Amino acid sequence: MINKKSFASDNHSGIHPTILEAIGVANIDHAPAYGDDKYTQAGISKLKEHFGENIDAFFVFNGTGANVLGLQAVTTSYQSILCAHTAHINEDECGAFEKSTGSKLILLPTYEGKISVEDIKKSLHSVGNPHRSQPKVVSISQTTELGTVYTPDEIKAIADVAHENGLLLHMDGARLSNAAASLGTSLKEITADVGVDILSFGGTKNGLMIGEAVIFFNKEHAVTFPFVRKQGMQLGSKMRFIGAQFEAYLSDNLWYDNAKHSNDMTRLLANELEKISEITFVEKVESNAIFISIPEQYLTKIQENYYVAVWSKALSQVRLMASFDTTEEDIHQFVALVKKVISDN
Amino acid sequence: MINKKSFASDNHSGIHPTILEAIGVANIDHAPAYGDDKYTQAGISKLKEHFGENIDAFFVFNGTGANVLGLQAVTTSYQSILCAHTAHINEDECGAFEKSTGSKLILLPTYEGKISVEDIKKSLHSVGNPHRSQPKVVSISQTTELGTVYTPDEIKAIADVAHENGLLLHMDGARLSNAAASLGTSLKEITADVGVDILSFGGTKNGLMIGEAVIFFNKEHAVTFPFVRKQGMQLGSKMRFIGAQFEAYLSDNLWYDNAKHSNDMTRLLANELEKISEITFVEKVESNAIFISIPEQYLTKIQENYYVAVWSKALSQVRLMASFDTTEEDIHQFVALVKKVISDN
Amino acid sequence: MINKKSFASDNHSGIHPTILEAIGVANIDHAPAYGDDKYTQAGISKLKEHFGENIDAFFVFNGTGANVLGLQAVTTSYQSILCAHTAHINEDECGAFEKSTGSKLILLPTYEGKISVEDIKKSLHSVGNPHRSQPKVVSISQTTELGTVYTPDEIKAIADVAHENGLLLHMDGARLSNAAASLGTSLKEITADVGVDILSFGGTKNGLMIGEAVIFFNKEHAVTFPFVRKQGMQLGSKMRFIGAQFEAYLSDNLWYDNAKHSNDMTRLLANELEKISEITFVEKVESNAIFISIPEQYLTKIQENYYVAVWSKALSQVRLMASFDTTEEDIHQFVALVKKVISDN
Amino acid sequence: MINKKSFASDNHSGIHPTILEAIGVANIDHAPAYGDDKYTQAGISKLKEHFGENIDAFFVFNGTGANVLGLQAVTTSYQSILCAHTAHINEDECGAFEKSTGSKLILLPTYEGKISVEDIKKSLHSVGNPHRSQPKVVSISQTTELGTVYTPDEIKAIADVAHENGLLLHMDGARLSNAAASLGTSLKEITADVGVDILSFGGTKNGLMIGEAVIFFNKEHAVTFPFVRKQGMQLGSKMRFIGAQFEAYLSDNLWYDNAKHSNDMTRLLANELEKISEITFVEKVESNAIFISIPEQYLTKIQENYYVAVWSKALSQVRLMASFDTTEEDIHQFVALVKKVISDN
Repeated sequence: MINKKSFASDNHSGIHPTILEAIGVANIDHAPAYGDDKYTQAGISKLKEHFGENIDAFFVFNGTGANVLGLQAVTTSYQSILCAHTAHINEDECGAFEKSTGSKLILLPTYEGKISVEDIKKSLHSVGNPHRSQPKVVSISQTTELGTVYTPDEIKAIADVAHENGLLLHMDGARLSNAAASLGTSLKEITADVGVDILSFGGTKNGLMIGEAVIFFNKEHAVTFPFVRKQGMQLGSKMRFIGAQFEAYLSDNLWYDNAKHSNDMTRLLANELEKISEITFVEKVESNAIFISIPEQYLTKIQENYYVAVWSKALSQVRLMASFDTTEEDIHQFVALVKKVISDN
Repeated sequence: MINKKSFASDNHSGIHPTILEAIGVANIDHAPAYGDDKYTQAGISKLKEHFGENIDAFFVFNGTGANVLGLQAVTTSYQSILCAHTAHINEDECGAFEKSTGSKLILLPTYEGKISVEDIKKSLHSVGNPHRSQPKVVSISQTTELGTVYTPDEIKAIADVAHENGLLLHMDGARLSNAAASLGTSLKEITADVGVDILSFGGTKNGLMIGEAVIFFNKEHAVTFPFVRKQGMQLGSKMRFIGAQFEAYLSDNLWYDNAKHSNDMTRLLANELEKISEITFVEKVESNAIFISIPEQYLTKIQENYYVAVWSKALSQVRLMASFDTTEEDIHQFVALVKKVISDN
Repeated sequence: MINKKSFASDNHSGIHPTILEAIGVANIDHAPAYGDDKYTQAGISKLKEHFGENIDAFFVFNGTGANVLGLQAVTTSYQSILCAHTAHINEDECGAFEKSTGSKLILLPTYEGKISVEDIKKSLHSVGNPHRSQPKVVSISQTTELGTVYTPDEIKAIADVAHENGLLLHMDGARLSNAAASLGTSLKEITADVGVDILSFGGTKNGLMIGEAVIFFNKEHAVTFPFVRKQGMQLGSKMRFIGAQFEAYLSDNLWYDNAKHSNDMTRLLANELEKISEITFVEKVESNAIFISIPEQYLTKIQENYYVAVWSKALSQVRLMASFDTTEEDIHQFVALVKKVISDN
Repeated sequence: MINKKSFASDNHSGIHPTILEAIGVANIDHAPAYGDDKYTQAGISKLKEHFGENIDAFFVFNGTGANVLGLQAVTTSYQSILCAHTAHINEDECGAFEKSTGSKLILLPTYEGKISVEDIKKSLHSVGNPHRSQPKVVSISQTTELGTVYTPDEIKAIADVAHENGLLLHMDGARLSNAAASLGTSLKEITADVGVDILSFGGTKNGLMIGEAVIFFNKEHAVTFPFVRKQGMQLGSKMRFIGAQFEAYLSDNLWYDNAKHSNDMTRLLANELEKISEITFVEKVESNAIFISIPEQYLTKIQENYYVAVWSKALSQVRLMASFDTTEEDIHQFVALVKKVISDN
């Protein structure tokens, strides 16, 4: 039987009780649809508290919508996006980016999950050549798809090279809270303050039921977004229930506490797994993801008891993630199971 | 000050308490993401109870997504959709249909909000001509955008002419429950039983927080939908909370009770407004929408107290809608305000 | 047996000898591809002579490409184009506009083939509403699809209402030469001088082998076009052979002489057909197209001898067109055949 | 002054006299537009002679159109194409593929310009996963973008792995004639006979003025192409002039003689350049392209006298190509210049 706690992804978790309560609080009376209501406005005000007053922010349903439409708002079809070959927009969205924008992704190699300034520069050789798609945006993920975290300096260096060449910097911040908790920074210090232009700010993976925000740090880039969002099928009618979630999420440190907790539980899990010689760590552990390889016969047995994410079947690699509600007991139970599986075989 | 009850749209209402409770019930433990969970399966089972066991059904976020992706799944870009010029996909989705499908809408005239078999036939003259987009689907809205309701016979006649000509029948059922409550039929009797091939089945306008279903009555049409949905940015990660809503919605007659109530309140409101000589009814009242014209000076005053939907500013026409939670007292308060506005002027 | 001269369309004609000769002249030595050659530059210089020095002009393959890409260059997918329901971009390009731009066409009624300023104004009611596609361009055809010709004043009135409302004016000038010849104006007097912003300038229907030009009267609108054209699959490698055709076409009045001749032959044909009581004229004859209705039994017989374009099978309406190489003898032969068919039946 | 003969690309050449003559021959009388004429039919008959009677073939304007629309005809937007990272559809069409299809290109590494069966297999790991674009077609270029030539066996091996996995094989045959001439095979032996499903068959780079063909070796794949082509803006009205070119091109061995000659001239050029120690050959010479590196100071001087294609500025690499009309004297003049430039510096 599969354990009730999953280590496959942080989106296997549910709704944080405070978030669910906020939905209930917003559920009185009638309210204008499509965001013209006080709960949506309150959610946006909270975003401004954290990211700066000069932003424009919009709620959408999911991360795919946030990434694709945020990028679409600042590009046209003959322009391309430079990103890691591992980027969610490349690997995990079934071609949603290409479908919606008609644009190209230019894929860069990664080093510990991150792209480099040098590779960005090398990708700019065809600017002005009508036979080539024209680079317009650099997109990075924070945390990266491999659980590593860009430092503020690393982000700034990428932003600088982007801006010097007339490009914008987009950040897929599905797990931005985990990155900030890992670095010990505010949300603003790793976005607005280091040159991010457009941000997908995730909520669902850290305690929300549903909802992500697209944030433009330069309001000029946001002008078209109301139309892009509606045409992009991401304008919710009862938007107040997304706004209310974000208001709660960004109050009383909930975003931070949830992220810190899942990072801490991940650290605990990593510490325990490091003691097991049959397990090899494939990536650094810097947020709430662990990438390990483990012999196939053990992996199969573990999967009979727990959801885990098989990253490479060929290499018998798995990703493990902790969530805002993972407990120390959950960790110990899981580790005990792993140990038992290994000793039994 | 604006009254807490709105008559502008049924999506100004909130979440029915039973639906909100169901979200809470689903909020225990972890569950696989993207629909591989028991709540999503339970929601789909309920859909099968109501619409037939041979359907394939999928949850999406909103009506735009349901309509556009349901149509996209069965067309290619050189094929077109025949629909009323008033259709939501034409008028109210910011061109989402054209953007996502690259296809054309062929607009038909309406009679009491409905399209006619004759006009469909006339639109088929260019079949096989590569200079013309090729008709592939007829799309109707039930209820119509003008609040009228197609009878089962009317739907069957349209389905027949569509099928005879190799076309499919799509139904935008954002308010299908209101139509069934109005007609006194089951949901199946006005969809599967009369030839509908693809259905957008709405929940949000009748008590859900968020969520719509796309139903394929021929499973062959559904084969591509998992990919179309993901690429179309409408695959929710914590889908269990949409499934749970639908399970509750389709249990214990909730869908029907909500719809019947909003229809009844609308009838009551219509009855009262019909007594006011300054008001002219523009459309038949058959579901939960009323279309009236009222002199502009009165309308302005009403808008200071209530949200209403101005349908035509030039003609001083407004749409009024009741919701699942509209009370008789709400109606009487509104009517009293209207009368006062008229007598004061 | 079908006669060697066709009255179905002016694109049934071939290449004017002067144009073919120009292709041969350009066929010496090697030349840079994709337009960086002296023949292309000479063609563009000729366009500047006729349309003004401040234009930017680009060659493409065909009218569909010219229309779609010219419109795409100045719109984004949530913006729409106002045009006649009869417009070529709506009726005759298999949905190429929607496919390439993802945008909507807003269809206006026609009066003698033309759209009205009043209908344009009425279509602007949803500006700023994110639920509606946003009007950005008015597109008219000169000559119209019904062979009528907008006067300079009519064009200017449409341009003025467009510009006053922040819209641009696009002209599908597949038969612009015929319009100018009909009006007795220069090409500039019915484009740049009366407010046209983007022009599809046709060549193929009036003596070229292949090639159309997209002209931007405001260079700012042209900045993206090199990329739009390449991505739009309309950048020819051996472009010198299109440039050479246009240079010849716009020299020594060839464009005018060809258009004037086809208009004159059409007038002659109309004069003869007007004498036949069995034939009814459906549209005014102002350029090189005639729209008539003729009883079906005669039409069938005519079609055994000549290519004609059946405009409405139901109404037994046909379009007849003369070309740059239609002769008086061709006309008299055709009229004789029509008379014989009628008298024989 | 730049020499009249270019070595930058075979599309710097003009029209072969026989082809131009064929255009003139087709320029009599009127003919139905859009391909319903005897010249187009004759061109298609010739294609059947060379590629097999069971094909369906269509003419388009250029290689971008042929590649993009041929692929579009057999894919939907959530499906992807496996191809070399160097593929023309990836590198040289300004994102036309992504724009028109909404699909993804999955880029494979190359070995002497070719992709490997092993890398294709590795790219199939996500079949059935809705988060991933689904591989549907393998696309190879013959000759490759680096001038190398797939052997029939190599093509067959790729076709086999594609077909075994439910994928199709597309070939970008912009220079298919050069490949056949290099291999000493018929056109059919390296396409239909070894498993190619869809072919872009080029003409423009080998003596035509304009025109490419899209060939479907399985007629089922061609059913939608008339609509795809029209909507894709690649249906020419005076198509007879493309058909006439292809008829001439495929008669009397013209396609072969032209290709053989340009290959031979390239071989001669390579032989001469190999004698120059300052020049390094970067790729094998197997068709009509040579890739060399040459110190920058020499390259600059050469460019003052000849058009060459700089392949990598950073590495001072250039591509040289011979054309159907390159003469031995042209080669010797060019080599003399290169030698002079080197000895002068």
